[in-house]
Amino acid sequence: MRIAVDAFGTDNAPFPEIEGAVLAIKEDLCEEVILVGDEVKIKYELEKFFYPQKRISVVNATQRIEMEDSGATAVRSKRDSSLVKTIELHNQGLADAAVSAGNTGAVMSASLLIYGRIKNVLRPAIAVVFPTETGHQILLDMGANVDCTAENLVQFAKLGSMYFKYFFQEEHPRISLLNIGEESAKGNATTKQAYQLLSQEKELNFIGNIEGKDIIKGITDVVVCDGFVGNIVLKTIEGVGFSIFEILKEQINKDWIAKLGALLSYPVYTHIKNKLDHTEYGGALLVGLNGISVVAHGRSNAKAMKNAIRFAALIAQSGFVTNARNYFERS
Amino acid sequence: MRIAVDAFGTDNAPFPEIEGAVLAIKEDLCEEVILVGDEVKIKYELEKFFYPQKRISVVNATQRIEMEDSGATAVRSKRDSSLVKTIELHNQGLADAAVSAGNTGAVMSASLLIYGRIKNVLRPAIAVVFPTETGHQILLDMGANVDCTAENLVQFAKLGSMYFKYFFQEEHPRISLLNIGEESAKGNATTKQAYQLLSQEKELNFIGNIEGKDIIKGITDVVVCDGFVGNIVLKTIEGVGFSIFEILKEQINKDWIAKLGALLSYPVYTHIKNKLDHTEYGGALLVGLNGISVVAHGRSNAKAMKNAIRFAALIAQSGFVTNARNYFERS
Repeated sequence: MRIAVDAFGTDNAPFPEIEGAVLAIKEDLCEEVILVGDEVKIKYELEKFFYPQKRISVVNATQRIEMEDSGATAVRSKRDSSLVKTIELHNQGLADAAVSAGNTGAVMSASLLIYGRIKNVLRPAIAVVFPTETGHQILLDMGANVDCTAENLVQFAKLGSMYFKYFFQEEHPRISLLNIGEESAKGNATTKQAYQLLSQEKELNFIGNIEGKDIIKGITDVVVCDGFVGNIVLKTIEGVGFSIFEILKEQINKDWIAKLGALLSYPVYTHIKNKLDHTEYGGALLVGLNGISVVAHGRSNAKAMKNAIRFAALIAQSGFVTNARNYFERS
Repeated sequence: MRIAVDAFGTDNAPFPEIEGAVLAIKEDLCEEVILVGDEVKIKYELEKFFYPQKRISVVNATQRIEMEDSGATAVRSKRDSSLVKTIELHNQGLADAAVSAGNTGAVMSASLLIYGRIKNVLRPAIAVVFPTETGHQILLDMGANVDCTAENLVQFAKLGSMYFKYFFQEEHPRISLLNIGEESAKGNATTKQAYQLLSQEKELNFIGNIEGKDIIKGITDVVVCDGFVGNIVLKTIEGVGFSIFEILKEQINKDWIAKLGALLSYPVYTHIKNKLDHTEYGGALLVGLNGISVVAHGRSNAKAMKNAIRFAALIAQSGFVTNARNYFERS
């Protein structure tokens, strides 16, 4: 697999992107990485590493899309940006997937403009893999569509189901609707209607509503919600995890016996922190498009970028996009 | 203060209610508790405790509203239920506040029917106090109104601000809108409009949008959102906290050194668990009504019921309802 990487996406660009690419090649996570951006800078940095040189190439781009740029406008006005060129490389078949840690709105706009939507998909969505007590789960939408109809939610369920099926090789992923109660009559106008529609989809393994309290228990494979709720919920999970560890640290530092105790329990903390660590995961996948765009976290370090590259390669191998296209085009 | 308590609300009713009432009186958290429900059962249980007998009275009620009963219907058909009679006692001036751990929808329906809304309040809401890294915060609505307009959110902000002001004696509580980004242009159609309206409210200390990741950091005093989002977010916080402790416990049990460590750090865990423990808080307050209804958790134990009684007494003393009524009636 050849992965095109926007080298100017992270807060510390291009260093995490370049080191991440080198690590991905050294660990053989894909055949080739194409780094896109200021050629002089990238090549200068690349020289600091020892790696099989034929497997990392550089494509020049003279512009950069900033975090504060508005998605669609930036994409149209900065056609020579590292982001737009990364997506174009994949669209032209010169790469098997595109990775960027830039502005999510801009990645979505560029992907929509360049790959286009899969026929019959009303709205593409952002899907994220996140850890649960027992394994992994996909949540979508995490922010592309803040106002959704019930039909949008049903399509997210189908896209999520196919994503989970091909990526985790699970024949009948369990699909749940994020709601305020388990009963079918619970929810707002949209989720009540979505529940009815989802119940009629015989091809989906729809197991009903899921509440916030069960969201990281691992009792489902795909959680469906609109982008407003999804974004708030995922950020809440991140925030609560972080806060609990902060309070733990603060309290432990107050007391030397507790400090000694924490030292002995250290491997356990590390294990849990790794479990919750976003850098262990590949990033978000834009679904419903005629191509593969992986969005990494803006704060990604080299390890996170390496994992995003691995993730993009695995998604390309999985056949998810081809299968989703076949499914929606005939529906 | 005299507090009316529905003795048949919790999952283990009437035991937590009765013991909670006895504890509240022994600790002098209010002058009098009126327990409402099956008189024979309550009196039989009360005899097991030693307490100043004049300060707990019993009012008979022959019916009980169950968790599966639909709110409004149950309230109309079960006029002799412990819940309806508890609310009526307060409405008739025989108690200064009402407490129930029953079905939240039914408590809201009974309160609406019996006290009525404050004039000019469009929709009453459910407000909860919850812990943050630095102190406390109020979130509303947590589930009474799943489909909200921007005007509803503005009224929630005003009610939340007054609640925080009178209860925590803080002159200018910081008000935030729960959203998917800090900028005013972020959000769904409703929150974008609510942001504009809130910015124009000169009497409110509106500090802007807050994201999910900052929700328990303690950087605001009142978090405003619709009941769909509020319910999901609060349950997510509860679920994540619970899951982290479950994973910690499981991992610690695998390793005797970590187990020894955990033993030494035990007071720290207890401190954090107490901090996150819902039984430490009073329960949810229904706001926007001409009366005080406190809803305790259905899983409440005696300590949680005691705290709900204390909380109801403090709310009654705070003057929140009178001040909210004066404010909205002249608006």
